[in-house]
Amino acid sequence: MAETDASNFTSHAPIDDPDLAAVDAFWRASCFLGAGQLYLQTNALLKEPLTADQIKPRLLGHWGTQPGLSLIYAHLTRLIRDHGDEVLLVVGPGHGAPGILACEFLDGSLGGTYKELDTDIIGANNLVQRFSWPGGVPSHLTPDTPGSLHEGGELGYALSHAYGAALDDPDLLVACIVGDGEAETGPLAASWMSPKFMNPATDGAVLPILHLNGYKLSGPTIYARMSDDELIDVAEGFGYEPRIVAGDEPESVHRQMWDALEWADGRRKEIQSAARAEGIDGVPTWPMICLRTPKGWTCPKEIDGKAVENTFHSHQIPITDPKTNPEHLALLEAWLRSYRPEELFDESGRPLDEALSICPAGHLRLGMCEKANGGTVAVDLEQPDWQEHCVEVPEPGQVRAEGTRLAGGYLRDVFALNSEQRNFRLFCPDETSSNRLDAVYDVTSRAWMDPMVDTDEHLARDGRVMEVLSEHMCEGWFEGYVLTGRHGIFPCYEAFITIAASMVHQHAKWIEQCSKLHWRKPVPSLNFLLTSHCWRQDHNGFSHQGPGFIDTLLNFRSSIPGC
Amino acid sequence: MAETDASNFTSHAPIDDPDLAAVDAFWRASCFLGAGQLYLQTNALLKEPLTADQIKPRLLGHWGTQPGLSLIYAHLTRLIRDHGDEVLLVVGPGHGAPGILACEFLDGSLGGTYKELDTDIIGANNLVQRFSWPGGVPSHLTPDTPGSLHEGGELGYALSHAYGAALDDPDLLVACIVGDGEAETGPLAASWMSPKFMNPATDGAVLPILHLNGYKLSGPTIYARMSDDELIDVAEGFGYEPRIVAGDEPESVHRQMWDALEWADGRRKEIQSAARAEGIDGVPTWPMICLRTPKGWTCPKEIDGKAVENTFHSHQIPITDPKTNPEHLALLEAWLRSYRPEELFDESGRPLDEALSICPAGHLRLGMCEKANGGTVAVDLEQPDWQEHCVEVPEPGQVRAEGTRLAGGYLRDVFALNSEQRNFRLFCPDETSSNRLDAVYDVTSRAWMDPMVDTDEHLARDGRVMEVLSEHMCEGWFEGYVLTGRHGIFPCYEAFITIAASMVHQHAKWIEQCSKLHWRKPVPSLNFLLTSHCWRQDHNGFSHQGPGFIDTLLNFRSSIPGC
Repeated sequence: MAETDASNFTSHAPIDDPDLAAVDAFWRASCFLGAGQLYLQTNALLKEPLTADQIKPRLLGHWGTQPGLSLIYAHLTRLIRDHGDEVLLVVGPGHGAPGILACEFLDGSLGGTYKELDTDIIGANNLVQRFSWPGGVPSHLTPDTPGSLHEGGELGYALSHAYGAALDDPDLLVACIVGDGEAETGPLAASWMSPKFMNPATDGAVLPILHLNGYKLSGPTIYARMSDDELIDVAEGFGYEPRIVAGDEPESVHRQMWDALEWADGRRKEIQSAARAEGIDGVPTWPMICLRTPKGWTCPKEIDGKAVENTFHSHQIPITDPKTNPEHLALLEAWLRSYRPEELFDESGRPLDEALSICPAGHLRLGMCEKANGGTVAVDLEQPDWQEHCVEVPEPGQVRAEGTRLAGGYLRDVFALNSEQRNFRLFCPDETSSNRLDAVYDVTSRAWMDPMVDTDEHLARDGRVMEVLSEHMCEGWFEGYVLTGRHGIFPCYEAFITIAASMVHQHAKWIEQCSKLHWRKPVPSLNFLLTSHCWRQDHNGFSHQGPGFIDTLLNFRSSIPGC
Repeated sequence: MAETDASNFTSHAPIDDPDLAAVDAFWRASCFLGAGQLYLQTNALLKEPLTADQIKPRLLGHWGTQPGLSLIYAHLTRLIRDHGDEVLLVVGPGHGAPGILACEFLDGSLGGTYKELDTDIIGANNLVQRFSWPGGVPSHLTPDTPGSLHEGGELGYALSHAYGAALDDPDLLVACIVGDGEAETGPLAASWMSPKFMNPATDGAVLPILHLNGYKLSGPTIYARMSDDELIDVAEGFGYEPRIVAGDEPESVHRQMWDALEWADGRRKEIQSAARAEGIDGVPTWPMICLRTPKGWTCPKEIDGKAVENTFHSHQIPITDPKTNPEHLALLEAWLRSYRPEELFDESGRPLDEALSICPAGHLRLGMCEKANGGTVAVDLEQPDWQEHCVEVPEPGQVRAEGTRLAGGYLRDVFALNSEQRNFRLFCPDETSSNRLDAVYDVTSRAWMDPMVDTDEHLARDGRVMEVLSEHMCEGWFEGYVLTGRHGIFPCYEAFITIAASMVHQHAKWIEQCSKLHWRKPVPSLNFLLTSHCWRQDHNGFSHQGPGFIDTLLNFRSSIPGC
């Protein structure tokens, strides 16, 4: 087959069902603009024949995950239009940024934030040109991306960020895309247990969408090679009700995905309604979606006789040399035109109504979600008078006291003062009592949805202390919580907070970048209380001595807000 | 009930079956000496009435997990005696050290390493006195513990250490105890996927024993509150065949555990025999054991009317003040005597034959396993001549080359030179190709037991490159591999090796402690190749810039071998 033959591309046959056709139009437009960002300096809408000089001199970025990301964005957008709910999207595979940016261009989120990215032909050319370009935007979902609170650069934290964002925001749905690469990481693997701590009456819901496209950078993924039965076993064992959406034929996948999202959204609302009306009876069986689509779906199936679509060769740049190879330039043009852009944009470059018909308006657009810009919705924390928690020392050396026990009293008062606002949490790897902070249990408890027994202490469905033996989950939840404008503290043995040091480092970099964007408002700080320091280890030994976290923090610039 | 009543303790009724009675005798003796280490300065065998002055002035350590650990040790010991196999034990809940130390005292492993701990009354008194004592041993399984290559201080790495130790050691069985606290951590959660990379023909087997005793420091554990059905779903989804052993009545638990170990050992041998005779057909369904026993099993059920056994109150020191409270001193004595020490030790303090009858001899004892002292079994790595991998530079500025591509050629030769010894591996989070080290694929592949498809590249059942998208798993496997005397390299993007920085820190501390013990021989070093440095990030952006790992290493003393 000649590579520019239509048979070398996914068939985008017209879809009779007008609802699905509209989603498909939005999706094709986003794939078209997503691929365009990898390759084009101009001529974004292919109003003219494609020429070599329009190709970027250096091709950098990732195609493989993009079609799945924009498919999910399109379907969530339709869901929001029909139901009017507030949805925050956490995109684990952040290296597929062009797929998300294309969607945000189409629904006007990007134009609402950056006027040079208005939905017209100038904006489209700016969109493609600035991607992976000096002075432009890098290839991940950085803070420049409106609607995002998660970069997806260092993998593992998508799901804990999502659950942290959903805490204490009962009407919010957080949709979280988990890549099958990220699913192999430890922090992500642990995070599946988060529903054990989420209260369906007072917290929002998280909808995990495990995107199985089969490959990482160059190897297959564990989860994609699992059978459906194995996937279902794991999901059910963790307490979810999974639904599998699978295929490589657009109409079929659209229909399945539409149905799956309707089912999942309906199911989460049933769970929430029941919990809010009748109380909580154990961990709800939350819905989740497993989406199996080909890696690099809709790019050329073959290039020079070598399979590309559905292999790891589509992870980054499927066609590597269109600027210098005329046949590959023709192939690229055929690929881009396979989305039928002439049916998607008018002469001025505005998307036609069919595609736009699935979009909600204003802040319901995923790219305009206010919760992703937590500083705009943050409510200040009421703070008790610290002088009420001092130790009277009438004479030197006459009084014995424990610092953290006093801090526990202070934190108890913080909980009490902010109980109506419900915007303060304590995150800790099961050390609240060991750290002598028990006073907080005078006014709250540990969150726990699983069965309880008589001998348990300080567990409650509405507890505000989040204890799990995973520094990664504590830190991920905490970051999701502050990035959506709430407050917290993370007490931790000094030696073991180092486990989460790389996360804190990445968070600080995110905050530093946010501080340079006028439209990003400052979020509350991450507060740490380090305990059980290296010089006080009665018996635990050398493994419990590790002051490395302080080293990590000392490397930050003092100008980073909240660090 | 009076607290010293027999009804306040687990009934250790005589067991008719002589096989089970022997295991039970060993177990009771280890519980007795395990509890003794927490409390006693002397009178270890209670040859005299217990008095307050025999109690340590400060009580430090953990009881909760001990009875489970020593139960597993006892049953493995019996298994080894009957089948003669080499078994390495990795103890995730290393804070239960006294339970393991007691077993090693009983079977003579400790005495074989430290003559002051010979199995007699002097040794027993030394054993109890030195625990959590100035100049003695801390409360974890530090390098002082013979047979251990894993401290269990920073939790999460038990299973990856176990799988790393089993690589390329086809006759070794690594039994790995995973605590239900540790199971909540990210690195542990990811490690369940390790069998996807383990070759049943050429690697050893790992038997995971998930010990569900219900509580962490003060909260319940997620895994213990899961139903049996949920546990089985998760285990089966991950590809294991689980068997549940559960109870609080010793004879019943002994019988189940005996049967479960016979089944698991038989099953792993069937898998190995089939793979070795007929080749490999996918990931084997390896056996695993879930052991549900009460937290703090066999300590007082109640103290002052408050439940202690089977609650988190038994996590550390169940009876907190026997030195100053005469009633509690009596309670402690009643507890210790509930194990019937008079039936377990002769006048000289030597364990009676019934208990010792379950023990194998020599290096088959778990505490004498040579693989845990990897330096004693290490074979030097054959190294190619690095000068054959130089770049000729006839004139300055005239030659372009890529450093890592050259390193790939060198590593290819390392693989080739050591192919017969099978003692070199490359561990990498799916970046071998991205890091330009592809030359290694001339002579080996990635290890992969899951299904393969035509478009996969560089996958093989006997591949020696271990690629998984988890820096934690790569590092854990690598540590297990070098601690058992083998060699490897871990190439990683500089920014993301920071994810494993705390692990490397803990490893360095382990090595530093080993260097002070005459009987521990130096193990091969951890070798890292950092790539994609912070000053070369074309498009990935700020998240991919992170030189913090070097900071971590620079804090190590130059005297630490291999650091």
